[in-house]
Amino acid sequence: MNETSVKSAAHLYPVYIGENLRHQTDHYLSKSYSSVLIITDETVASHYLSDVQESVSQETVYVHVIPAGEKAKSVDTFYQLHTKAIEYGLDRQSLIIALGGGVVGDVAGFVAATFMRGIDFIQMPTTILAHDSSVGGKVAINHEQGKNLIGSFYAPVAVIYDVGTLHTLPDNEIRSGYAELLKEALLADGDLYQSLIMKDLSSLSNKDLADKLLKGIEIKAGIVGIDERESGIRQHLNLGHTLGHALESLLGYGYRTHGELVALGLLFAFRVSEKTFSSQLPYEQLYTWLKSNGYPFKLPFVEPARILSKMKKDKKTLRTTIQMVLLKDIAKPALVEISDEDLLNYLHDFQKELEQRND
Amino acid sequence: MNETSVKSAAHLYPVYIGENLRHQTDHYLSKSYSSVLIITDETVASHYLSDVQESVSQETVYVHVIPAGEKAKSVDTFYQLHTKAIEYGLDRQSLIIALGGGVVGDVAGFVAATFMRGIDFIQMPTTILAHDSSVGGKVAINHEQGKNLIGSFYAPVAVIYDVGTLHTLPDNEIRSGYAELLKEALLADGDLYQSLIMKDLSSLSNKDLADKLLKGIEIKAGIVGIDERESGIRQHLNLGHTLGHALESLLGYGYRTHGELVALGLLFAFRVSEKTFSSQLPYEQLYTWLKSNGYPFKLPFVEPARILSKMKKDKKTLRTTIQMVLLKDIAKPALVEISDEDLLNYLHDFQKELEQRND
Repeated sequence: MNETSVKSAAHLYPVYIGENLRHQTDHYLSKSYSSVLIITDETVASHYLSDVQESVSQETVYVHVIPAGEKAKSVDTFYQLHTKAIEYGLDRQSLIIALGGGVVGDVAGFVAATFMRGIDFIQMPTTILAHDSSVGGKVAINHEQGKNLIGSFYAPVAVIYDVGTLHTLPDNEIRSGYAELLKEALLADGDLYQSLIMKDLSSLSNKDLADKLLKGIEIKAGIVGIDERESGIRQHLNLGHTLGHALESLLGYGYRTHGELVALGLLFAFRVSEKTFSSQLPYEQLYTWLKSNGYPFKLPFVEPARILSKMKKDKKTLRTTIQMVLLKDIAKPALVEISDEDLLNYLHDFQKELEQRND
Repeated sequence: MNETSVKSAAHLYPVYIGENLRHQTDHYLSKSYSSVLIITDETVASHYLSDVQESVSQETVYVHVIPAGEKAKSVDTFYQLHTKAIEYGLDRQSLIIALGGGVVGDVAGFVAATFMRGIDFIQMPTTILAHDSSVGGKVAINHEQGKNLIGSFYAPVAVIYDVGTLHTLPDNEIRSGYAELLKEALLADGDLYQSLIMKDLSSLSNKDLADKLLKGIEIKAGIVGIDERESGIRQHLNLGHTLGHALESLLGYGYRTHGELVALGLLFAFRVSEKTFSSQLPYEQLYTWLKSNGYPFKLPFVEPARILSKMKKDKKTLRTTIQMVLLKDIAKPALVEISDEDLLNYLHDFQKELEQRND
């Protein structure tokens, strides 16, 4: 088991990573609680809920299972979880455990952030993608008009990451989480990036993955420790997300996984970076690796103007001009304003190029 | 114009109090914003919205008017306000102004706390009651099963309090706000308490009220400055609210104003304090003053067991035993656990006494 820690405005919290941690949940609780509510989704419940339930010895342990998938990040699920918390008699000394991927972590975390104005919660990620979302204290639900538009900064009291839960992930979820790892490496660690892209996803071992996830978490923790509230360098974590989020919203949440579309966004950010800084990035290498690992290149066509309009609804948009995270080089990110006109051209060219290559 | 300041975890924020401040809003903004959304209710809009709108010189000023009354603190209004904020193109550099009483401050503040994970907001209270709710950084909406159950601690960047807006208040709103002033005085300042209870509400001057409100705000600011997150002495501010909140919820929000029921709660807290500490409190004086100033003593009968059960749904409840704020003496509050049995007896006796006096 490895351990690292993350600094938030409110407190420093530990991140435990290793195998079989789900069988020892109690061991990682730093105090006793009046009651515990485990929130998880249907898929995760069938695999790991009983393990976690059995490993919590608090007197009163409740469970609520939400539907799997992005649609659970709705205001309806949010309100329903509050109803359950009230009905179970949770109070300010209670704990919420978010057992699952990013969706569960985000919605359960936002419930914890807002139930009686905030109670303790613990993230227990069960996906690769959630290595990213579980660290950094961002919690949120979606608005019909945009992802994560309603939320808070609210740090967990701990992250308990059992990498033994990752082997049940479907391929598209592995691709999704791995894209965020690629992003973290691109922001801060060229060697990690090369080691990530040297391997095919099908040949990853649990041990190998755990080591890389720890590195990814440390990169992210380093950034959010400096800038929790995203007024400065935390915005770099948005690399690949300007296009990724817009596509996710336009194609419908769940059409492809978050990270698969972020991966396309990374490729797009490479291209825009090259145009903006006249820099040389390993575009071909990334394209080839993504293609051979099954990332989606055949997407329904969406007009560049619609993509641009959607980008402007993103909460990172400032005074209505798009700011994109670009790379001057690997591990040298920069936040740059891109004019509407340039962006439309870049989108048009990018779509055209991918289409031609697909033929 | 007077000014005081309040300490929150995030920042120190100023409270400006005086007459006609609503005509100089711009003067109190500490920076420029990409856009401003003024949220107010129907009643306040008809009196003061145009004044405020005209005094904000930012380029883009939007307005959204919500229904008056507690029902607007719903998850539906909350979501609708998010929709408006998105449609108006608010971004992270935008400002929300909450112009109105506690309901507007709470719901608009919670929208500001959660829109894109938090943007700046300013409280512009227009009721006496809101002198209390606008200071201290608590924002929330109601759940069908309880008041303020969904919310955050989120401090405004400033409070701009124009006491010139208070003369349009109906009597029951004056009673409501004044009860919270009585509470603050009871917690910390015996002289203020005596001066408050020496006057009838009908004889209050604007100047007099402004001075007393400033004192009330300073008492509250002193407490929340020490304990913003209600882990310790902030709980004292709950004096009178254990019964007040329960009645409010059981009789239906809006049946009587918040503070009118808190006033009954203060009287009840006097009685329980006397039983618990064998202390002598000016119960008769308070009863007489409340009665002669029109506070409600003829309420529909509610079974003590139902009141107790509702109290247990209050978010201040800890491990299911009721904790009440009592007074060892005026200006000497204490948080005390009261057993269910005792509480039922106290409620029964209190109801019986009020009923007999009403005859």
